[in-house]
Amino acid sequence: MNEITYKPIGIVHSSFKEPKTVPSQAAASKGSKGTLEIYPQYAEGLKDLKGVSHLILLYHFSLVKDCKLLVKPFLDDQLHGVFATRSPARPNPIGISTVRLTKIENNTVHIQDVDIVHCTPLLDIKPYVPKFDDRKNAKIGWFKDKIDKLKDARDDGRFCK
Amino acid sequence: MNEITYKPIGIVHSSFKEPKTVPSQAAASKGSKGTLEIYPQYAEGLKDLKGVSHLILLYHFSLVKDCKLLVKPFLDDQLHGVFATRSPARPNPIGISTVRLTKIENNTVHIQDVDIVHCTPLLDIKPYVPKFDDRKNAKIGWFKDKIDKLKDARDDGRFCK
Repeated sequence: MNEITYKPIGIVHSSFKEPKTVPSQAAASKGSKGTLEIYPQYAEGLKDLKGVSHLILLYHFSLVKDCKLLVKPFLDDQLHGVFATRSPARPNPIGISTVRLTKIENNTVHIQDVDIVHCTPLLDIKPYVPKFDDRKNAKIGWFKDKIDKLKDARDDGRFCK
Repeated sequence: MNEITYKPIGIVHSSFKEPKTVPSQAAASKGSKGTLEIYPQYAEGLKDLKGVSHLILLYHFSLVKDCKLLVKPFLDDQLHGVFATRSPARPNPIGISTVRLTKIENNTVHIQDVDIVHCTPLLDIKPYVPKFDDRKNAKIGWFKDKIDKLKDARDDGRFCK
C-alpha cells in the first residue's frame, strides 16, 4: 500500500488564528473553547455521545512544512527523533488531542481545552475511555526532565510553512 | 481541503493473521507480542525513544469495508453513532492503540499488548505521556454499562470486507 487517502469529516474552529502561541498540548490549554463543525453528511455519526466527557480528536496539521526526522520540540532545545516527540511536523502530520465535550447542537460539537489552530481539517472523533486509553506508571524517557515546562510551552511557529 | 494523502512509515507484524479473534483493545491484549517494521528511510526518527515505556500507534484499518454512520460495536448489540464508538469501520479508518515498547533494534520496534492485525500499514508513532494523554474522572456515556465486557470482547469480522 503506497498511499492512503482520507477526506476531512469537518473542520475545527478555535480562537487560535495561527500556530504561534497555541499551547503545546490540550492538557495545557484548560478552558480554551472551540467547536467542531461536522459536515452534514457525517452528522448522524455523532449519535450517542451523550454522557461522554472527553473526545480524542485526530486531525491534519495542514500548516506544517516538510518534516525532518530529527526535530527540536517545544519542550526542549535539543534534537530528538521525531517519533520520540509530539512535534506537528511528522512524516504523516496527524495530530491527536483529547478535549472536553461540552455540548452538541445538530452538527456542531462544542469543546474545551482546545490546542488546535482555527480551520484545521478534522479526520476523526473517538470517545475517550480511561480503561482503553490510560496507562498507569508509564515511563517517559527524555520528557522526564522537561515535563515541568509544559504549562508555559507555546507554539512559536518553528514547524510552519 | 478535499483529500489528504499519507504514506505508511512501516508495517505492523503481529500474531493476528486476520481480524477475527483480535482483542478489541490493546488494554485487553496484555502480553501479545508484535513488531513494527519501520521503513529504512524513516528509521532515524526512532532516536531517543530510550526510556519511553508506551507508544501511541496510529494505523490504517486496511481490511474494513465501507463504513456506516450507525454501527454495532464489539461491546454492545445496539446501534451507536460511529463517532461514539471505537469501531474500525469509520469514515476515515484510522486506528489508535497504546502499546508497550520493549526493545528497538535498528528499524525494528518490539512491542507488547498488541491488538492490531498482521500487515497493517503504520501511519505514525507518538510517545505516550500521561500528563498529555490521561484524563482523570472522564465519563464514558453508553460504555458505562458495557465496559465489563472488555476482557472478553473479540473482533468477529463484522466490519471486514
